[in-house]
Amino acid sequence: MAKDKKNTDTQLMDKLVSLCKRRGFIFQSSEIYGGLNGAWDYGHLGVELLRNIKDEWWKAMTYREDVEGLDAAILMHPRVWEASGHVENFTDPMVDCKQCKSRYRLDTLFEETSIKKQKEVLRELDPQKYQGQQKDEFISEEFKKITESTPSSVLTALSCPNCGNKNTFTDARKFNLMFKTFVGPVEDSGAVVYLRPETAQGIFVNFLNVQAASRQKLPFGIAQIGKAFRNEINTKNFLFRTREFEQMEMQYFVKPGTDDKWFEYWREQRMQWFIDLGMKKEKLQWHQHEPDKLAHYAKDAYDIEFEFPFGWGEIEGVHNRTDFDLSRHEEFSGKSMKYFDEETKEKFTPFIIETSAGASRSLMAFLVNAYHEEEAPTAEGQMETRVVMKFHPKLAPIKAAIFPLVNRDGMPEISKKIEQELRPHFRVFYDDSGAVGRRYRRQDEVGTPYCITIDSQTLEDQTVTIRERDSMIQERVASDKIKTYLFNNIK
Amino acid sequence: MAKDKKNTDTQLMDKLVSLCKRRGFIFQSSEIYGGLNGAWDYGHLGVELLRNIKDEWWKAMTYREDVEGLDAAILMHPRVWEASGHVENFTDPMVDCKQCKSRYRLDTLFEETSIKKQKEVLRELDPQKYQGQQKDEFISEEFKKITESTPSSVLTALSCPNCGNKNTFTDARKFNLMFKTFVGPVEDSGAVVYLRPETAQGIFVNFLNVQAASRQKLPFGIAQIGKAFRNEINTKNFLFRTREFEQMEMQYFVKPGTDDKWFEYWREQRMQWFIDLGMKKEKLQWHQHEPDKLAHYAKDAYDIEFEFPFGWGEIEGVHNRTDFDLSRHEEFSGKSMKYFDEETKEKFTPFIIETSAGASRSLMAFLVNAYHEEEAPTAEGQMETRVVMKFHPKLAPIKAAIFPLVNRDGMPEISKKIEQELRPHFRVFYDDSGAVGRRYRRQDEVGTPYCITIDSQTLEDQTVTIRERDSMIQERVASDKIKTYLFNNIK
Repeated sequence: MAKDKKNTDTQLMDKLVSLCKRRGFIFQSSEIYGGLNGAWDYGHLGVELLRNIKDEWWKAMTYREDVEGLDAAILMHPRVWEASGHVENFTDPMVDCKQCKSRYRLDTLFEETSIKKQKEVLRELDPQKYQGQQKDEFISEEFKKITESTPSSVLTALSCPNCGNKNTFTDARKFNLMFKTFVGPVEDSGAVVYLRPETAQGIFVNFLNVQAASRQKLPFGIAQIGKAFRNEINTKNFLFRTREFEQMEMQYFVKPGTDDKWFEYWREQRMQWFIDLGMKKEKLQWHQHEPDKLAHYAKDAYDIEFEFPFGWGEIEGVHNRTDFDLSRHEEFSGKSMKYFDEETKEKFTPFIIETSAGASRSLMAFLVNAYHEEEAPTAEGQMETRVVMKFHPKLAPIKAAIFPLVNRDGMPEISKKIEQELRPHFRVFYDDSGAVGRRYRRQDEVGTPYCITIDSQTLEDQTVTIRERDSMIQERVASDKIKTYLFNNIK
Repeated sequence: MAKDKKNTDTQLMDKLVSLCKRRGFIFQSSEIYGGLNGAWDYGHLGVELLRNIKDEWWKAMTYREDVEGLDAAILMHPRVWEASGHVENFTDPMVDCKQCKSRYRLDTLFEETSIKKQKEVLRELDPQKYQGQQKDEFISEEFKKITESTPSSVLTALSCPNCGNKNTFTDARKFNLMFKTFVGPVEDSGAVVYLRPETAQGIFVNFLNVQAASRQKLPFGIAQIGKAFRNEINTKNFLFRTREFEQMEMQYFVKPGTDDKWFEYWREQRMQWFIDLGMKKEKLQWHQHEPDKLAHYAKDAYDIEFEFPFGWGEIEGVHNRTDFDLSRHEEFSGKSMKYFDEETKEKFTPFIIETSAGASRSLMAFLVNAYHEEEAPTAEGQMETRVVMKFHPKLAPIKAAIFPLVNRDGMPEISKKIEQELRPHFRVFYDDSGAVGRRYRRQDEVGTPYCITIDSQTLEDQTVTIRERDSMIQERVASDKIKTYLFNNIK
């Protein structure tokens, strides 16, 4: 049963990736050159879906009195990443094989060790304790314990997965996940800059600039959408773990003591945002970081997780970052990052409540959430499977398709006129080729919520049929009311 | 006179940079750490201005039948840049001083040589020819000729501007302007990738992907907005020459032979776009690339130039790139990049007409274009200078400001109600502090086209005054008609 589910889930991912490529949502980056691992391109429909998601987020965040926008540069002063802790801590432990020079991430090396091999290693380390018919679960548990307590002892007992040699690993070294480059013509340490691994720091360092220019008073937030880069050793799961991705982050600055209240407020807002845009509630859950696993800056942290075909995965984090970030930047820059409260005449370092969503990950979640296969009748009355992307109309890349049904005198003219009227306001698609049933299916597959058909009756009474994607119900609407109809149903 | 103009222009730039910082348009990147040269952050108003420019471009480009959108990754396969010619040709010649190790861009070194020094160098090289009282213009001309014909001879005669030593320069070497980084944990040549120096290549390599998915037929275009990076040795002129910037590029694929016609079509479209958004015609001009200075891929090339305070500068290029790009990618990838015309059954490599605008540069041009200082009467009837940013209403960061005039019973409630009604549709700003004259000036300075005042008459007849920014004319409008008023005047 579990295996069946896994098969179905893998199939679903395959189908989705294939649909994304075929219909122009997502292409492999630099595909004609064999692709670049960890980077993806958004095709003509993908870019619209992504824009719609980002626009909805931007409206939800900045069309309010207490949040301002920002767009900080990707390249920042290198001291920023010392202050943030990224230079020191944003690392994965790596080992090299001294024989064949293969390189491994330590945790991956341990995770991918087979049970058989785990048994061998444990028996070599402690022949007394690990003998006879011990259960796999017991072995796994013990192996995990030992890799956590004395990883080097395990390394000595493991052999290299590539060349098979034993006792060949170097000590684990920290590998920093920030992409490094050089500014100016000299490639030395003085010229190193990093591609930002998160957009948040651009907000922190601009806190007082934005506050002064906008005349905001606490509590208020700064919102930003932008690219970030992480030199992941292992990229995986389509858009989920990539080297280049886009974030939608909002940092809300509050008076210490009011942080718990705002933390709860933003948790509620952010979950509701996904639900309002059509995310199924049963596919969303909160994951609280356990106290002993909290990041060094965090007082409390919850992730919004979505159930992907490969399991639950984080699409947004809501974190109480305390005064860590501003204090660190004050320390490293020597500039005060304190807020002066004009009413109480107090000066203090605000706490920060962060809402950090992945734009790319959210897009993938919206794709999975929208994908449906349904039995539906054809024009001839037979049943067939239709694939339909049930995007919220606000997110759908194309809002309406226009189908002239028969090619009679005046028909293309009317259809083109309708297209011209709608085009300044909505992304529309004009399709006059093939049977209307096929045209519907093509639009279902990309999630177009409304299909407008111009038929012989249109010439007589100036009405068209509008067919709604999910219910497939058609209604006749006066052709001069189409724009209003779409406005009311989409916006 | 010329000097006066130069002073005024420098003053104008200073005033603009200062206004941009103070009011939240543009901040220096990582300012608290002393800034990062060549990178800028967009503040809460700058980000809205930038978004509005990009949105208008996106609508003008993709809300038409024959252009599709795209959003390709910044990191691309390194072979892309071999095919494009960037690895080989996207370089500046550099020299080092062997004594003090200072590094110079060759052309800058020559350009910044004083007339006095030029004379010395020329006399050293040819004592017979360059003697007596020769005119500066003659010397300049001769010096330029020699640096172009035999730069190494000039290098030998020049001394290092830093340490003063002579005959100390290395031979000129090519310095590539692409930012380089490494993918994966090993920093060797096999892991090198570049930050894209232009967005265009992402469009070229996806040409057939987009064409197949969108079922477009020639002629059609692909439009993209995104960041690009150039490791400029000398950054200058605020947002004009930076290391990180944003482009808005559209590549239009046409049948060879129709390229001249489409080139003219897009030239006209693009110039008109700037004019429609309020750019003064006298501040725009075409600059045609001379035939002997055309880029290696171009058949014809025109730049749209804007008159900045520091002189005319390119804000967009319209280029006929021929079949160069697709042919090169076909050659380097081994994949056919040809288009199959179903009607004529022909297979051929399309020509490309490129429209390549700088989003950051356009924004700077719109800022300069909008800046005005005017004499205007105060509330007390005296004249004062008002600074007003005359943005086109579509571009203005804030569309309307709401001013409750006196704090009488019911007044804040009405004002807040108006704010609530407008906020879902427009960026609005609520200001109830200070004299109304000062509130007007604050909005003038950021280019808010409409100021809505709620006064005692509002309580009696439910009307407000709406004051237009440029004419300063006020008219009374029923408070339930404000939304319609703004929609009609802005959208």
